[in-house]
This record gives sequence, structure tokens and C-alpha cells, in this order.
Amino acid sequence: MRLAELSERSGVPLATIKYYLREGLLPPGERISATQARYGEEHLRRLGLARALIQVGRVPVATAREVLRAVDDESLDLSRRLGTAVSSLPPVVREEKAEPVSTSAQQRARELLTALGWEDPHPNDPSHLSLVSAITALESLGYPCEVAHLLPYGRLASELATSDMDLMAEFEGTTRLEAAVALTVLYEPVLLSLRRLAHAREADSRYREPEGG
Amino acid sequence: MRLAELSERSGVPLATIKYYLREGLLPPGERISATQARYGEEHLRRLGLARALIQVGRVPVATAREVLRAVDDESLDLSRRLGTAVSSLPPVVREEKAEPVSTSAQQRARELLTALGWEDPHPNDPSHLSLVSAITALESLGYPCEVAHLLPYGRLASELATSDMDLMAEFEGTTRLEAAVALTVLYEPVLLSLRRLAHAREADSRYREPEGG
Repeated sequence: MRLAELSERSGVPLATIKYYLREGLLPPGERISATQARYGEEHLRRLGLARALIQVGRVPVATAREVLRAVDDESLDLSRRLGTAVSSLPPVVREEKAEPVSTSAQQRARELLTALGWEDPHPNDPSHLSLVSAITALESLGYPCEVAHLLPYGRLASELATSDMDLMAEFEGTTRLEAAVALTVLYEPVLLSLRRLAHAREADSRYREPEGG
Repeated sequence: MRLAELSERSGVPLATIKYYLREGLLPPGERISATQARYGEEHLRRLGLARALIQVGRVPVATAREVLRAVDDESLDLSRRLGTAVSSLPPVVREEKAEPVSTSAQQRARELLTALGWEDPHPNDPSHLSLVSAITALESLGYPCEVAHLLPYGRLASELATSDMDLMAEFEGTTRLEAAVALTVLYEPVLLSLRRLAHAREADSRYREPEGG
């Protein structure tokens, strides 16, 4: 398809597509004349992923390029490409906002992973750092964050990862990686929205006083 | 305690405490002379909550004031105070980033809540809007978001809400509300970090090729 059709089918404005092409978020099309190129289904998919990262995941353009580079890196196996792509995403807790992590939070995070039967993550893994920094905040405010409190979160995360990976298995090769990255990013707001709705519902059923009662 | 001790015990700089007092995030202390006031444990706790909102939850100061006002509004019952406080938090998906929601995403969100046995939320509930907008993004990119895919997320959110509310029940009255708001905000990064770690782990166990193999 031509650029105009790619824009129409994806719903992404022409100027944005040209910008993504210049920034290397989208591979160049197949040249068919001095001024025209042809684009395929893989461009349509990649465009969708770039938009998911940038618009929904709030990922800066330079970061999106890193993530997509990892997705395309055929020198690595699927697991390493996914790991690199996900760890290139903006961290859950931004570093400049995080307090210095405490030793006891590091200790708790380690105990949590042991209790879950998970391997030790790389000490610089951004998700691990976000976890430790969230535990540090809970500790310093005196809120409950014993391993026993954190464990249900870990168990549920594990169940979600299994069902997510089952979904991803329906896609093949690079497409599977694109789906994995998109689902990581796009299901985060689904999860948080549902948790807030569930909180409101649970609070209602426990603490709502009858109207005019 | 005096202002200096409040600063020392909370680890919050004096200038920040004075700013919070001016902005109404912290109630004034009890005046003991023309230039001095005394602060209590409730100030220490409230200061912790304000910091959790602003530093970890990335909540703007004006929004934090709204949230804390809802926590303190004794004209409402606990359930409504919590509901108002949580819906005053910045939404999971920021409106300016969200695409216009689709009718089919609204339909799916409704079916999901029915399948979960949850009541219809208020159509302007910010968490519900975030959910619909996340489903719109998944749909428009052609990623799986059938009710069957969303349901495990809803079930797990429900389990988390139950265990969260059990935790909160250990606190009394306004303190319980403070804990509820803090745990809503502070456990979000815990949950997302653990999900990303679980993804990496699950991908490893499914797709990692042996080194040098």
C-alpha cells in the first residue's frame, strides 16, 4: 500500500507517519519510484505498536526506538528480546521521583522473590528497582509491607503472566514479540482501573451506610 | 512536637512542611505562642500521606488537597469518603492522552462488569473511563481484548481488593481512610513491577534457548 493508504488504514496522520519514518520507529517502505514507496501489513502492525507505546504507554520517542530495536534484534532469542524490550520501557517508578532505597526494602524484596520461588533478578533490572523503591516508600510511611502482605500481589502477577503468555503464544516470531510488548503496556491501565473499581466496590459493601438511615 | 521535630521525625524538610501548611495539605498546629505551634501524631501521619501522594503517586499539589479534603469530610460515610478520595486521584489513563472511546469498548466494559457480578459504575467514574479507553486502544490495534481475556484481570483485581481491605480494617476511622488512599497509590507500582518481573520470568521459562546451544 502507499503512504496515504497506510495513514487511512491506521488512522495515524501522514505527518506523524513521516516523523516515525525519520526517527526510525518504522522501517522504510520498499522503494517503487524516485518519490514513492510501498508499505506492507508489517508496517501497519508496527505503526500500531509505536502508537500504543507513545500514546498509551507515555513512552518518549527515543525510548520507543530502543524498545523496537530490541524487538527486531534477531541475534537474540525471543526471551532475551522480550526482556530487553520490556526493560527498555520507562520504569514503573521514575528514578527522579524515587527515594533512595533502604537496605531493609532490598531484603524484603529478596525474601518476597524467594517465597515466590522466583530467581534473583539482575540487581539493575528496572522493574526490580521499582519494586524496591515502592517497598521503601511503604516502609518509610509505616504502612504494611511484610512479605506476607506482598505475597498475594506476587502470586496474582504470576497468574496474570501465565495467561498473558498464553495469549501471546497465538502470535508467531516477531509478531509475538510485538504483541508481548503491546500487551505489557496496554494491560497495565486495564489492571489498575479494575483494581480501583474493585476497591470502590469492596469499600461499598463493607462500609456504606444506608441512605437516610 | 515543634515544627523542627516534625521535620526530623518525618524526614521532610522544614520548607516543604511550611509549604504544605500554606497549601492546606496539613492542618495548622495548635498555637502555643505568637510564633510557635505544636504538632501531633496526626500531623506526622498526614505528612506521610501527602508525601506518598505527591512523590510516589505523582499527584499534583492541588489534587492532593482535593483527595485529603475528601478523607476529612466527616459529613460522608467511610465508603463515600474513600470513593471520593480515590476518584480525585489522577486517572490511570490521562484524558489528554486517551483516544475517543469506542461504542464497542463501552459495550465490552459493561459485559465485563456484568460477568464479574459488579454493579454498573457511574458513567463518569474516572477508573471506568480509563478502563474503556484502555480497551479502545487494544481494539484499535487489533490485540485480544475479549471479555474472556479481560475476566482474569477483573477476578484478580477483586481478590486484591479483598486482601487490601482486610489490611485497612486494622486501622480505625480517618486513619483507615488515610491507609486506604496510601495503599491504593503505593501498591500500584508494587503490582506493576511484579507483573513485569513475572512476564520476564514466564518468557524465560518458555522461550529461552540454552546458552551456546
